[in-house]
Amino acid sequence: MEDKIFKIRHSLAHLLGAAVKELFPNVKIATGPAIENGFYYDFDFSGNADSSGQDAEKRGITEKDLGKIEQKMREIFKKWQGFERKTISYNEGKKLFADNPYKLELIEEYNKDGKELSIYISGDFTDLCAGPHIEDIKDIKTDAFKLERIAGAYWKGDEKNKMLTRIYGLAFSTKEELISYELQQEEARKRDHRKLGKELKLFTISDLVGAGLPMLQPNGMILRKEIEDYLWDLHKDKGYDRVWTPHITKKGLYETSGHAAKFGEELFRVKGGDEEFFMKPMNCPHHMQIFSDNQFSYRDMPVRYFEPATVYRYEKAGQLSGLTRVRAITQDDGHLFCRGTQISEEVGTIVKIIKEFYTTMNMMGKYWVRLSVRGDDKSKYLGGDEVWEKAESALEKSAKENELNYKRVEGEAAFYGPKLDFMFYDAIGREWQLATIQCDFNLPERFDLSFTNEKGEKERPVVIHRAVSGALERFMGVMIEHFSGNFPLWLSPVQIKVVPVRENHNEVAKQVGDELKKNGFRVDCDMNEGNMGGKIRDAKTKRIPYTIIIGDKDIAVNKITVENRDKGQLGQMDLKEFIEKIVEERNKKL
Amino acid sequence: MEDKIFKIRHSLAHLLGAAVKELFPNVKIATGPAIENGFYYDFDFSGNADSSGQDAEKRGITEKDLGKIEQKMREIFKKWQGFERKTISYNEGKKLFADNPYKLELIEEYNKDGKELSIYISGDFTDLCAGPHIEDIKDIKTDAFKLERIAGAYWKGDEKNKMLTRIYGLAFSTKEELISYELQQEEARKRDHRKLGKELKLFTISDLVGAGLPMLQPNGMILRKEIEDYLWDLHKDKGYDRVWTPHITKKGLYETSGHAAKFGEELFRVKGGDEEFFMKPMNCPHHMQIFSDNQFSYRDMPVRYFEPATVYRYEKAGQLSGLTRVRAITQDDGHLFCRGTQISEEVGTIVKIIKEFYTTMNMMGKYWVRLSVRGDDKSKYLGGDEVWEKAESALEKSAKENELNYKRVEGEAAFYGPKLDFMFYDAIGREWQLATIQCDFNLPERFDLSFTNEKGEKERPVVIHRAVSGALERFMGVMIEHFSGNFPLWLSPVQIKVVPVRENHNEVAKQVGDELKKNGFRVDCDMNEGNMGGKIRDAKTKRIPYTIIIGDKDIAVNKITVENRDKGQLGQMDLKEFIEKIVEERNKKL
Repeated sequence: MEDKIFKIRHSLAHLLGAAVKELFPNVKIATGPAIENGFYYDFDFSGNADSSGQDAEKRGITEKDLGKIEQKMREIFKKWQGFERKTISYNEGKKLFADNPYKLELIEEYNKDGKELSIYISGDFTDLCAGPHIEDIKDIKTDAFKLERIAGAYWKGDEKNKMLTRIYGLAFSTKEELISYELQQEEARKRDHRKLGKELKLFTISDLVGAGLPMLQPNGMILRKEIEDYLWDLHKDKGYDRVWTPHITKKGLYETSGHAAKFGEELFRVKGGDEEFFMKPMNCPHHMQIFSDNQFSYRDMPVRYFEPATVYRYEKAGQLSGLTRVRAITQDDGHLFCRGTQISEEVGTIVKIIKEFYTTMNMMGKYWVRLSVRGDDKSKYLGGDEVWEKAESALEKSAKENELNYKRVEGEAAFYGPKLDFMFYDAIGREWQLATIQCDFNLPERFDLSFTNEKGEKERPVVIHRAVSGALERFMGVMIEHFSGNFPLWLSPVQIKVVPVRENHNEVAKQVGDELKKNGFRVDCDMNEGNMGGKIRDAKTKRIPYTIIIGDKDIAVNKITVENRDKGQLGQMDLKEFIEKIVEERNKKL
Repeated sequence: MEDKIFKIRHSLAHLLGAAVKELFPNVKIATGPAIENGFYYDFDFSGNADSSGQDAEKRGITEKDLGKIEQKMREIFKKWQGFERKTISYNEGKKLFADNPYKLELIEEYNKDGKELSIYISGDFTDLCAGPHIEDIKDIKTDAFKLERIAGAYWKGDEKNKMLTRIYGLAFSTKEELISYELQQEEARKRDHRKLGKELKLFTISDLVGAGLPMLQPNGMILRKEIEDYLWDLHKDKGYDRVWTPHITKKGLYETSGHAAKFGEELFRVKGGDEEFFMKPMNCPHHMQIFSDNQFSYRDMPVRYFEPATVYRYEKAGQLSGLTRVRAITQDDGHLFCRGTQISEEVGTIVKIIKEFYTTMNMMGKYWVRLSVRGDDKSKYLGGDEVWEKAESALEKSAKENELNYKRVEGEAAFYGPKLDFMFYDAIGREWQLATIQCDFNLPERFDLSFTNEKGEKERPVVIHRAVSGALERFMGVMIEHFSGNFPLWLSPVQIKVVPVRENHNEVAKQVGDELKKNGFRVDCDMNEGNMGGKIRDAKTKRIPYTIIIGDKDIAVNKITVENRDKGQLGQMDLKEFIEKIVEERNKKL
C-alpha cells in the first residue's frame, strides 16, 4: 500500500481534516487514513455549537454538507505547497494538541511504545501523523477525488468508546479512474447478489437460523449442484477420489494440526454431554486421517482426495453479508499427497482444471496469481526456515514451469505453507481471490504421514491443498453478480419457459415441454390462467434463457416460436433443430 | 413383549438363577429379565468361597462353567411344576431376602413407590418378581435354550455401583428356531460391516476425530454416492426440489420447533464467540424456514424438498458402533408441504419410491409396516388429541389405500406426529427399521406456515417427513452385511479388474481397460509386477464382480476371458458383447 496512490489518498484525508476544521472550528479531529479506493477522517462534532445529540443531523453535519466540505477542500488545496514533516518531542506534542483528547491519547500511546512522534504540516493544517505523504502535491488531481458518504464509527473501533462521525472520500490517480469506479459501483448495486438472490429466489437468510448461515432455495441449489457436479467432472478422470468427513472432531485433531492455536476465536466450539469438540474450520486434518489409515507405497502416489465439504468459521456478526461472507463455508476442497518430485506436475494438472473452469465461467480474460509467502512475523507460521524455503521454491518453480503470471507477496501464506492464489476479474472489473494451490511440508510432519518408497523405507509425502471455486457460497455470490442473474443455459434454474398463446394450445405446449424434459431440460410449462404477455414478462423477470411460444401459426406448420433472453427473437424453428442447438449449448456450457 | 416367548424367556432367567444358586450357594442374585432372543441374570459372586477379585475367573466363574450351569438348569427344570405367584408385605419381603442386599434395595424402592410386592416360587427357588411367567411349564423346551456368554454389568447399569457378573442365555420356542438364530449369528459375525469395512477399505474411525464420526475412504464414498445419486434419481421426476441447509442454527429455531426440549442432552451445543447455537438433530425446522420465505398459492402445492443432509445427535460413547450407531447421521431427508386432501396420494408416491428402492436392494421379499402412534404418556408429544387423531387417521387411511401390510404400534410415534415405519429383512433374516413416512400437523402450526387457497385465504399446510434409506451411514452398514461385501455391479467400488497373463499382454490389457473406462466403469488395470495368480486372488479378496484375463489365446482370437465373482468362469467373450452385457447389468442395477 505504500505506493503513490496510497500517499495521494492519505494526503487527501489531511485535506478533508483541514476543510472540516475550517468549516466547524470546534470540531475535534481523530484519525484519517488512506483506504482501498479512497480515504476517510473521523471527527468529533460534539463541541460544535449546533450539536447536542447522537445522530449526524444533530451533530451538525449531514450528507448534504459534503458538497460544501468538498468545495472547501479544493479552496484550501490551492493554498497548499506540500507536506512538511517534523519530529516532535512528547512535551511538544502535548502542547500542540492540548485541546484534542484523541491526539493526546495517541501521543501517550506512541510515547509508551517508544515510537517517534511526527507531525505533517500543510498550509495552516498540522496533524499528528507517521506519514508518508505525496512528495509532489501536483500529483493530486482535484477532479479525481470526491466525498462519498458519512457513517458512524466508534473511536478506535471499540463500541465501548464514543461514536464519532466518519466522512468517506473516493480518490484515484485520474478523473477517468474515479468515473469508472463510480460506474462500477452503480453497476454492482444493480447486480448485488443479495438483491438478485431475493428476486430470483436463490437463497434465504432467516432470523431463527441466523446470519451467515444461508439456506439454499431450490433455484439456488440447482445453481450450486451444477457447479459442484462440474467441478467433480473436471477432477474425476484425473486420479481424484471422493471422500467424506464429518463436520466435527474431538479437539485433539486440531491440537495436533495446530489449527486450534491458529484459528482461536474463529473456531466454533461444540459440546455433547461433557465431551468437547470443534467444528472443522478446514478439511485437511480429516483428510490426513483418511490417508494415514492406509499403507501406501510409492506406486500409489500421488493419492488425491476430493470433497466439497462445509467448514465452519465464526466470523463476527458485523462482517457477515449474503453469500459472500458466511459462517458455513463449503469448499470444493481437495488434498493431494505426493512426492517432492511430483509437485510441479500435480500443480500443472490443477492449473489446467482451474483454467478450464474459469474459461467456462467467462473469467479467464485477465487474471494474475499471487505467490503468497511468509511475512516478517515468522511466529505466525508452523515449521522452520528450511521447510518453508523448500515449499516456497517448489511452488515458485511450479508457477514458472506452468507459465503463470505470478507476483510474490509477503505475509499472505497459509499458516502451514505458501500458496498460489488466483485472482480473477468479474464482468464489471472487480478483482476476486478465488482458486488456490498450497504447498505443505508441515502438516504431514505433524501427523507423521508416510508411504513406503522403493527402498522399503518410510518416506514423508508433501501435501498440496487446493480449491478451484474457493468456497461455493462465495463463488455463487460472485457468479450471481458476474452474470447479473443472466446465467448461461447450463446454470439457469429454469432453462426454458413454454407459453401457449391460448388455452387451446395447452396440449401442444405440454407435448413440447415433455419433449424438452425428456432431453433433461428444466422446463416451466406455464398452463396457468393469465394472458400470454404476463407469462412472457414473467420469463424475463426470472431471466429464463429461452421462451417458446406455441400458437395457431406454429401448430399449423408444426414449429415453435423461440425467444432468447439475450439475443431476442429467434423466430420459428423445428423443435428437433431447437433441441439439437440447446443440447450443444448446455453440454458445452456455452 | 408380554407374549408367550417373553414369558418363556423370563421363566428361564429364574431357572438360571436357581441353578447358579445351587452350584454357588454364597452367590447373591440381583435381577434377571427376558430380553430379545433370550434372557440374562446378574450375580454377585463376591461372597463365593473361591472368589476375591475383579475378573470373572477370580469371582469363581468363567465361560467354561456355562456347560455345568446349563446342565444344572435342565436337572432342576425336571423338578419344577410351574410358577406360583404370591403377593407379600414389605416386612415379609425384608425377612425373606434378609441376606440379599440387591433384593432389599429393590424392596425399599418398590415400597417407596407404593408398588405391590410379589414373589414367584418354582421348586425350591423363590424370587422377588413382578412376573408374568409361563402358565404351562411344558411350553419351555429344554433343547430350545442355551447359555451364551458372560459379561460384566454394573448394578442398575450405573458405573458408580458394583460390577456384577451377567450370564446371557438364548431362548426360543423351538430347537429349530434356536439353531437358525445361532447360524444367523455366525453368519452375521462373518459379514460384520466393521470387519468388512476394514478389509474392503470402506471407512475409517480415528481416535483423533472420535468414535461415532466415521470418515469415508474412497471405496466407501463410491458406495455412498451411488446410493445417494440413485435416491435422487428416484425423486427428481416426481416433483421434488433439492435444497441445502447449514448444520447449525441459532437456538431459537429449535425452541420454536420443540426439538430443544425433546432432544435435550442428545443435542450438540455450539458456541461461536459468545453466541450460542445447536447442531441440527433434524432438518425439518430448516426446511420450514425455506418454505416460509415464499408466498405459495394452492397451485404450488404440494411443495417437496429433498436434501441428503447430515444431522448430529450426541449418542452415548458406549452405544456407538461402526456405521450403524453414529453421531453424524446423513438422512436422505425430504419434507412435503401439502393439503390434507393430498396426503394419501403423496404417501402413495413415496411408497412407490420405497418399493422400487428396496426391490433394487433385494429386500422387498418380505416386509411389514409399523403404524407408530402415540403412547400413553401424552406429555411426550406436541399438540392436542384432535390434531393427533387427524394425523393418525390420515396415515392409517393412506396405509390402507396403498395396501400396506401394517400393524398399529403404540408409543413409537415421532414427537410431532405418527409414522409409517418400514421394516425390511436382510439376506440372513434380520429385521431392520429403515424407511419412514411421517405425518405432521404440529410443526406447521408452530412455524405458522401457510399458503393462499382458492378463496384467497391463508391455509395451513400439512407436512410429510420422509426418508427412504433412513440414514446413509446405517444403511451402508446394513448393505455391507446384507451383501456380505459382494455388492452388485453398480455399487461395487471397483467393478472390473483386468489382468494380463504376462508383461507382453500389458498393452492389450490397457486397451481393454481404457475401453471399459470409456463406458463409465471403475476399472483396476493391474499392470504391476507380480504373477497372474496373485492378481486374481486380489480381485477375489476385494470382491470385484468381474475379472478379465488377457493372454495369448485371447489376443489370438481377439477376445477376452471373463470370470464372475458369483458365477465363476464365463469363458471367452467379445469385448463388445461383454460391455453390452455389463452396461445393462449396471444400468438396471441388477
